[in-house]
Parts: sequence; C-alpha cells; structure tokens
Amino acid sequence: MGKLLIVGTVAFDEIETPFGKTDKILGGAATFIGLAAAQFKIESAIVSVVGDDMPLEYLEVLKDKDIDLSGLEIVKGGKTFYWKGKYHNDLNSRDTLVTELNTLADFSPKVPENFKDADVVMLGNLHPNIQMSVIDQMTERPKLIVLDTMNFWMNNTLEELIDVIKRIDVLTINDEEARQLTGEYSLVKAAAKIHTMGPEYIVIKKGEHGALLFHESSIFFAPALPLEEVFDPTGAGDTFAGGFVGYLTATKNVSFSNLRNAVIHGSNLASFCVERFGTERMLSLKKGEVDKRLHQFKELTQFDIELQ
Amino acid sequence: MGKLLIVGTVAFDEIETPFGKTDKILGGAATFIGLAAAQFKIESAIVSVVGDDMPLEYLEVLKDKDIDLSGLEIVKGGKTFYWKGKYHNDLNSRDTLVTELNTLADFSPKVPENFKDADVVMLGNLHPNIQMSVIDQMTERPKLIVLDTMNFWMNNTLEELIDVIKRIDVLTINDEEARQLTGEYSLVKAAAKIHTMGPEYIVIKKGEHGALLFHESSIFFAPALPLEEVFDPTGAGDTFAGGFVGYLTATKNVSFSNLRNAVIHGSNLASFCVERFGTERMLSLKKGEVDKRLHQFKELTQFDIELQ
Repeated sequence: MGKLLIVGTVAFDEIETPFGKTDKILGGAATFIGLAAAQFKIESAIVSVVGDDMPLEYLEVLKDKDIDLSGLEIVKGGKTFYWKGKYHNDLNSRDTLVTELNTLADFSPKVPENFKDADVVMLGNLHPNIQMSVIDQMTERPKLIVLDTMNFWMNNTLEELIDVIKRIDVLTINDEEARQLTGEYSLVKAAAKIHTMGPEYIVIKKGEHGALLFHESSIFFAPALPLEEVFDPTGAGDTFAGGFVGYLTATKNVSFSNLRNAVIHGSNLASFCVERFGTERMLSLKKGEVDKRLHQFKELTQFDIELQ
Repeated sequence: MGKLLIVGTVAFDEIETPFGKTDKILGGAATFIGLAAAQFKIESAIVSVVGDDMPLEYLEVLKDKDIDLSGLEIVKGGKTFYWKGKYHNDLNSRDTLVTELNTLADFSPKVPENFKDADVVMLGNLHPNIQMSVIDQMTERPKLIVLDTMNFWMNNTLEELIDVIKRIDVLTINDEEARQLTGEYSLVKAAAKIHTMGPEYIVIKKGEHGALLFHESSIFFAPALPLEEVFDPTGAGDTFAGGFVGYLTATKNVSFSNLRNAVIHGSNLASFCVERFGTERMLSLKKGEVDKRLHQFKELTQFDIELQ
C-alpha cells in the first residue's frame, strides 16, 4: 500500500450558513484531507498539533479511518486552533469572525519515522516554514509533494512561501490567489508563471466553477458537480486535495493522465463534503455513493464528436 | 441541407475594453448567430431590421457567408439599432453607455416564404412579441425552437416572455438571469423550474465558466476553453448560440446526445469570437483552426477512470 503523509490543521470550526449554525465542531485542513484520502486503500498519517481541549471522540473519528496520529502533538494545557466564520447568502463568500492560532503559533512538526519515506506528501495550508520543515524531514524524495496555500501567507510570508514552492511538484491554489501570486488575471498566464517558480503541475480551484489542472502547455478541467443545494462549503477545498492525493497514493502513478483522474476523484469527494456541516457527510459516505457519482461526472463531461 | 431561421438584431456596436476601442462596427445578435452557424453546411436566413445608415459593405459580410437577407428590412431614412458599452478590467462585467432602439422600436418581423418550413428557429434576444410573431408565421412546427433572452425582458415584458417560453424547446439564458427568472439560486433548481414553464432543454451560460445543458434529470457541462487573453467578450453568447443551432441544423438530429455535441461546438466557436473586437475573428476563422480547437476541448474534459 502507498503511504501518504499529511500536514495541516486539526481544528475547531464554528460555522454559520443561511441554513443554520454549529457549535465548535471538528475541522481543519488535515482533518478534511485525511477523511477524503481514507476513501482509498492507503496508509496515511497526520502531522499536526492540538490542545488538550480537543475531545478524544473527535480524534477517534480520524483513528476509525486508520489514520496514523503518532505525529499529532497534544499540548497539555494548550488550546486548539479555532476558526469561526459566517457565509453570505450565495455561499460563495464568507466573513472570518474569529481566528485563534493557539497551539499552532509555536508548532514544530515531527514526521513519524515510518512516514519519512511516504510516497506522497500533502502540505496543507499552514505557515510555509512548517511545510518546509516537513519536506526537510523526509529521508527519501517523495514521488509527489503537493502544497496548498492561501492569500494570508502571500501577504505575510511571501519569501518563505516562494522557497517552499520551489521544492514541490503540485501547487493547489484558488483562482484569486493564483492571480495575487502572479499578478496575472488570465489563469492560463498565471499557471505559466507558477510553472517557472518550480511546480510541474498547477491546480487552480474555482469553487463551484470546478478546477483546472495545468501541465506544460496542456490543460485539464474538472467541473464541480452541479448540486441542488450547497449546504456548507467549509472543507471542500481540502476534501478536493484529499481525494486528489489519496487516489495518487493508492495508484502510485504520478503521470499527467493519472493526475487528471485524481482531479476528478477530488471533485467527486468535494461534492459530498458540501452537503452537510463540517465533516458530517464525509463520515456517512458509502463506497456505492462515491462510485455512483463518478458515473455522473462521466455523464456530465463526455461527448462523442468525431474529430478530424 | 437543413434550414435555419434566425431572428435578432443587426446592429452597430461601439466597444471599449482595457485593450482598446472601436468606432461603430457591425454587431447584433443575429449577426453573431449567423456568422457562427455559417461554419456548418446549412441554409440560413436572418429576419431583422436596419436603417439605411447601415453600410452595404457590412451587409456584404453576411451575404458572403450565403446568409439569406430577404427577411432583413431596410427602413429608408431610419437609423440602425446602436449599442455602446465599456468593459471593466476583468472583462466579466460591463457598463452600457448608450442603447438606441431606433428602427427596432417598431419592428414587425416578416419570415421569408422559403424559410417558413425551417428545421430550426433561433429566436435571438429581442422583444418577446417579435419572437412570438416569428413562431406564428411558421407553416410547420420546426424540429427545434431555441430562444435567447435577457433580464431586460424579464423586467419589462415578463408575461409576454413567459407566453413565448411555453412554445419553445430550448431556452438559453445566463446564470444570473436564470436565477432572476425563477427566484432559485441553485442552477439545478432554476433549470427544474424552467422545465415546468415549457422547454425540454435549458442551456445556462456561465461566461468564462462554461455552459450547462439540462434535460430531465440529466446535466451536461461544456467548459469555456481557458484562454491566455480574452480581448472582447461582445457577441460570445450569440456566437455560442449560433454554433449550437448551426450544428443541430446541419445534423438534423435533436436528441439529447446530439445537443451535448452542439453545446461543445457552440463553446468552441465562442472561444474564437472573444479573441478580437466584434466579428473580426469570426470572419478570419478557418476550418482547420476550428477542428484543432475541438481536439483541445476533448483533451480538456476527457478522463479514463474505470467505472464500477
């Protein structure tokens, strides 16, 4: 079985949408990545930090999916990273009401010995120095290093971010952030600029408008599945990334044609994530449902024009 | 050969984008529809009206594509419909600076005798009473009636619009207009509501984010081709519609699977339209270029996950 190493937040999320609101529930990039990747037959581990205010039952959710938590530091007397946000009526934008870094502020990641040779490393959205430290701890160059980031790190730690981007294979980033990082409005031009910064592959996430995978002069596009209702977008991007790296770890094939498939698997899982609050839908998800929706993706995109 | 009847504006457009501006150039829905449809082996005619301020060389552009203009009324001493607009920097939104209806205000369409049995009728964006009058003049029920409209008619002539929507097969409409027409934010729900108003097929256009084709509970998605630069979006929606109906007229097949292909042909042609001002790119377009880009659409969307 392929091995996947995930670094990212394990957090408390408190979410308000037009459909309702939650208390502090289990969230965080590594959580969503891990739950999505667990849909595939792989070994996975999360490197992260929480305070001892994190209920053990929340961590059991991850252990139940056979995710190795030996790299999850629990700080005694510490408080877990906490995010509170409110989505606008169209669910395409949100206000962050509270961000408390807490134990994340001084986090120094420690990769478990048996994952220092992981096939795939997923660097979830975090301080670039933490992402870099994880790369440095690997004893073998992974087949694939994937990095997700956001505008916050571009605004505050751009040099460090550029240094770590040099060392990765795939950057996943949303459309606005790709524009900010490169100064190019056209996503085709933005991806071309990011290529010159290091990564062989660029995934530009466009939320409800799907995701683009760029490789040399080729482009692949995965639509988001049109849904009757998006209930809560929290974690959709991380679930996308989790499906993407989970599939690649399971198939141990990092060719462009397999990355295309991986983007579809990521979009597929993300389409479930948004149907309920937080991790709820991912935890009830059955293989039959996942397979059925893959058929819908095929139906959604395939056509039979005879090419000349 | 299949026959296509097009009703819509033949107009003067004056356009400003971040890349430059034009004088009064040839524009209008019927112009863009006709030029795109002319890529296919069909007989086509335009029903429209202009003033005698329209230079004959502009009309020659349409005649050169073998488009029948016997239904194009030229009003002596009249002025042609004129639109002036300025696009914002992201080219996704624009301000209308001038709209002069001129001869369009009293337009009463007259369908040429030899097109009263057209296979496909494309009702371009116009007053719903004009669209209705064209349907009423057909001696045989066309295989397919396609209607395009916009928010202006919803705001001012909603009852008339709903009456004509009852009698068509395909409604093409953009995402915001679908939401306005139905009061549903979800495009899946909006399409379902529009189905109950009459049309068997709904095409929801999302500009640079592609187009969705809804039929019963099935959905097909055609992405827009990611471009290095969008130069001028004017006419892209009508070019899309022209490619869509042109292909369907040529193939004389109005099955769902052929409508899927038609949406791809429409997206393909629209991707050229935006590369230059107005009709410029459509006039220089060569078959080899069109075919080559169809390959890109295939590359952009096809994947090979084995389904279970």
